[in-house]
Amino acid sequence: MTSIKERILTLRELMRDRGWDAAVISGSDPHSNEYLPDHWNARRWISGFTGSFGTVVVTAGHAGLWTDTRYFIQATAQLEGSGIELHKLRVPEAVDYPEWLATNLPKGALVGIDGTCMSLSEVKALEAALAPIEAKVESVADYLDAIWTERPGLPEAPVFVLEDKYAGESAADKLAFVRERMKACGASRLLMDRLDCVGWTLNIRGGDIPYFPVAIAYLLVGPEDATLFIDPAKIRPEVEDYLKGLKVSVAPYGEILTVLAALRKEDRLCVDAGSINYGAWKTASESCSVMEMPCPVIGRKAVKNPVEIEGCRRAYIKDGVALTLFFHWIESRMAEGCRISEIEAASKLTALRAEQEDNIGESFATISAYGKNAALPHYSATEQDYSFLEPRGLYLVDSGGHYLHGTTDITRTIPLGPTTELEREDYTLVLKAMIALSRAVFLQGTIGSQLDMLCRQPLWKTRRNFGHGTGHGIGHVLSVHEGPQDIRHTIRSLAPIESGMITSNEPGMYREGLHGVRHENAILARECGSNEFGAWLDFETLTCCYFDTTPLVKELLSPEDIDWIKGYNSWVYESLKDLLPPDTREWLKRKTSFHTT
Amino acid sequence: MTSIKERILTLRELMRDRGWDAAVISGSDPHSNEYLPDHWNARRWISGFTGSFGTVVVTAGHAGLWTDTRYFIQATAQLEGSGIELHKLRVPEAVDYPEWLATNLPKGALVGIDGTCMSLSEVKALEAALAPIEAKVESVADYLDAIWTERPGLPEAPVFVLEDKYAGESAADKLAFVRERMKACGASRLLMDRLDCVGWTLNIRGGDIPYFPVAIAYLLVGPEDATLFIDPAKIRPEVEDYLKGLKVSVAPYGEILTVLAALRKEDRLCVDAGSINYGAWKTASESCSVMEMPCPVIGRKAVKNPVEIEGCRRAYIKDGVALTLFFHWIESRMAEGCRISEIEAASKLTALRAEQEDNIGESFATISAYGKNAALPHYSATEQDYSFLEPRGLYLVDSGGHYLHGTTDITRTIPLGPTTELEREDYTLVLKAMIALSRAVFLQGTIGSQLDMLCRQPLWKTRRNFGHGTGHGIGHVLSVHEGPQDIRHTIRSLAPIESGMITSNEPGMYREGLHGVRHENAILARECGSNEFGAWLDFETLTCCYFDTTPLVKELLSPEDIDWIKGYNSWVYESLKDLLPPDTREWLKRKTSFHTT
Repeated sequence: MTSIKERILTLRELMRDRGWDAAVISGSDPHSNEYLPDHWNARRWISGFTGSFGTVVVTAGHAGLWTDTRYFIQATAQLEGSGIELHKLRVPEAVDYPEWLATNLPKGALVGIDGTCMSLSEVKALEAALAPIEAKVESVADYLDAIWTERPGLPEAPVFVLEDKYAGESAADKLAFVRERMKACGASRLLMDRLDCVGWTLNIRGGDIPYFPVAIAYLLVGPEDATLFIDPAKIRPEVEDYLKGLKVSVAPYGEILTVLAALRKEDRLCVDAGSINYGAWKTASESCSVMEMPCPVIGRKAVKNPVEIEGCRRAYIKDGVALTLFFHWIESRMAEGCRISEIEAASKLTALRAEQEDNIGESFATISAYGKNAALPHYSATEQDYSFLEPRGLYLVDSGGHYLHGTTDITRTIPLGPTTELEREDYTLVLKAMIALSRAVFLQGTIGSQLDMLCRQPLWKTRRNFGHGTGHGIGHVLSVHEGPQDIRHTIRSLAPIESGMITSNEPGMYREGLHGVRHENAILARECGSNEFGAWLDFETLTCCYFDTTPLVKELLSPEDIDWIKGYNSWVYESLKDLLPPDTREWLKRKTSFHTT
Repeated sequence: MTSIKERILTLRELMRDRGWDAAVISGSDPHSNEYLPDHWNARRWISGFTGSFGTVVVTAGHAGLWTDTRYFIQATAQLEGSGIELHKLRVPEAVDYPEWLATNLPKGALVGIDGTCMSLSEVKALEAALAPIEAKVESVADYLDAIWTERPGLPEAPVFVLEDKYAGESAADKLAFVRERMKACGASRLLMDRLDCVGWTLNIRGGDIPYFPVAIAYLLVGPEDATLFIDPAKIRPEVEDYLKGLKVSVAPYGEILTVLAALRKEDRLCVDAGSINYGAWKTASESCSVMEMPCPVIGRKAVKNPVEIEGCRRAYIKDGVALTLFFHWIESRMAEGCRISEIEAASKLTALRAEQEDNIGESFATISAYGKNAALPHYSATEQDYSFLEPRGLYLVDSGGHYLHGTTDITRTIPLGPTTELEREDYTLVLKAMIALSRAVFLQGTIGSQLDMLCRQPLWKTRRNFGHGTGHGIGHVLSVHEGPQDIRHTIRSLAPIESGMITSNEPGMYREGLHGVRHENAILARECGSNEFGAWLDFETLTCCYFDTTPLVKELLSPEDIDWIKGYNSWVYESLKDLLPPDTREWLKRKTSFHTT
């Protein structure tokens, strides 16, 4: 194993040979995945940084990692001694790496990238930023191969079919929908590069990516048939028959560029400029007419059908059972004086969730964070570095599961004993923020970044804020983070919140060195009547797990807040009571009654 | 005087001669003015519709007016018998005129426009909508001249200089700022086409447009000098000397296209694609290199300097005096049994405002609307059609003034006697909405369409809404409606609300045939501290006029709402008491104490 410093030195040699003034390692892959197969995790390899967001840039005299508020503490720790400097994003006066390059490179510089592992939009933005200094971008696929000697191969998990009783809509109907959209814009081909779009369209799932039950593949849809570019070893005979029934043929994954290069001039190919990698786009652009438009599947799959919605409701009931058993277990064990580590707690929760019928794994790595560790919103306890739960302060657990019928994402923060005044204030105000969004009523056409304001205002009134988004779409047995809706302060998406969309509602408060609080429910947007002013929507809360009321500061809550909490907790009790063993049921009865300290 | 029907028939003849399948009359002018000089008010001439927003489209078989919710009632009345059909915008399933044309015209159709009276962006959007049916746009300047025989000439009001003691920044400094921005993007010329930008930059004002104290002109800024294209008769010798001191020469208004056509290939001209008319853009594009960027003055003039802010505070105090005298007068006169018409009331208010020192006119036509007339948000009483105030229900008055030191915009809705339950509910919820925005605390970077949600939520919770924006920027002795900030539900502007911006806060509720409520204050965004989460802003309310508390439904208000109202009303009393005659002072004392019915 080479050290980070050695890797950067070797990269600089490679850059010298190629005549590059800078190299960009985007930490992305050909499919814009959030969690990367190790094969593509070049950012981690070159820097040692394990967070899910960031870009590494190396020049002759500087090596830097650009990442955002979520990872400042973690990155500072992981970069120590590497010689790589942390560049903070999403803070006042943040300078992103393209602007940094434009300021720090000489006129006419050459910047090396691997275009197959960067999105078209990112490379375009980079080129635009470099234009004033007349610097150019050179894309070389897999350029790190020359120095990354121990690079892992691609995963090989088998594909399975998600039955219609779980998916709620047949793949044939979904393909018909895609072709209808292609026809409407005069396209003869559509390239699907997002793995969840491919999985959703064909009702297939896989196991190639941690926490994301999909297979690494491209889908090229034509007017009558389609081709799935995938390692054929992953397709068992019954899946091959299923695909044949849909007129979907299978081709090796690596052939996608060859097939794109062989398209004819008169072909009109739809690609999604928001996700397609620069390599695929460039190849297709040189052979045929490329039309850029958002993948039609994104908006459609975000609006869950009744079968998916009912499946998610059931999934949250199962999650509620697992979490109730989990919190009861923690309390009982600690009362017995047992020591529980963050890692043991996370494993226990994983096991309890796995016991639920139809559970097929976790939807992301559980965040099990006690005390000051919870001040890192994306904290990850490791065998080398973890804490024990103590009978005081707050414990935060953010976890989720995939069930065959739905995917969950839930965070609860619970008191383990006495709490400080600041902990109680933060706990209360974050819950108040979550309730404000839960109770929103809004007209059709309202976007997430508008609803975000309702959630932030209770925190902002006391000059508090959290540095992450408020809510993301949650896929159905797909990615736990999906678009197009996005509840956040910075406007990234103009997609309205539509009836049938399931979104997380997860405000937080983080105090470095002290504590962290996050309360997260999943909320389903639904119609709630029309009148002369338009069509109205509100939210149904799907998540079914109590909020501990003991840390609440009653003076900070309105009568409406208190009514909401009481109503929610009694609904939780009524929904779960028959699914719990008697002692846990009694315990939950007490937990769901309203009493503040 | 020809009738509307005759005018449309003549237009159809002209269309036949030109081979046009449709003609668009945009109701705009070369400078994107909201209030048009009669010379350019072609929409009113062709349709009889007097509203401030709309487009007329005529084809061989159809004539239509597209306008929005504000004008549905008024347009329906004014179009009656004209054969022109109303097309509603900003309602579910609204179809704007470009899409309507694309659906209703034959393939390859020709659409006639006057490009000098349409913005570049509007013509581009029209062309884009027509592309699928391969229809083309043909622009002919002043094509209506051939049939519009009584077309009025251009106004001729003299220009005056707004002294630095009012403007707070010299024109020399403002020109230096513009040139700095030009330099930063490598431009050799900048064309300013918005009349308020021209007026702000040179610290000059005029009287060409009703309620908008500017002169019709273009300003072409070069690296060292500039040219003002304006009717030279408007420039008195002392103003000419002032301009000479700024190295600004004067050229006839009509020469702008000639000068643009004479620019050289190597010239780099900045134009604002958001406002420039298609005619000027096309001329310049054919002679030189055109760079499209927002006029740098827009964002700068929206952030008021300390002299402007203090001037606005003083203006709202004067407005408060005028309105208090006005409401006292109404109550006294009605108590005496006198009949007051909406028009008499408006005139009285105009006179009271005019008595205030440094008042130079109204900032828009006063809306004086009693009872059901107030259900039209932009109602205008006319000599032919007006109501008398009755001792029951609600009276709404929306008015504003220009003072040499600042511009105002204020709406109050007052009870004239007993009110209905629905009136009281609407009155209360609209005030609650206005208070919610007034009390907002927000991080730097927050845009108006996010803050809008705080204002709407109290109304939305009871499934109520209003169909207009919540808040617009207010110019300084310029347009009462200015950008870039915009507090509204539909996202039109991504400009954050910055410290120093003055914006209206004017939610409403309109019940056709019953009543209308609007409460409007002007709010100044200001810094309120920084901490680890960023820089915080809140609002200072500038408007200084009491809210009548008698119609308030106490159960709909939170303790915080009631505190706000009490605090506001006592601030109003303290600010105005020494400026009022004794009887009005005593009367205001009673009005500003909190008592609900």
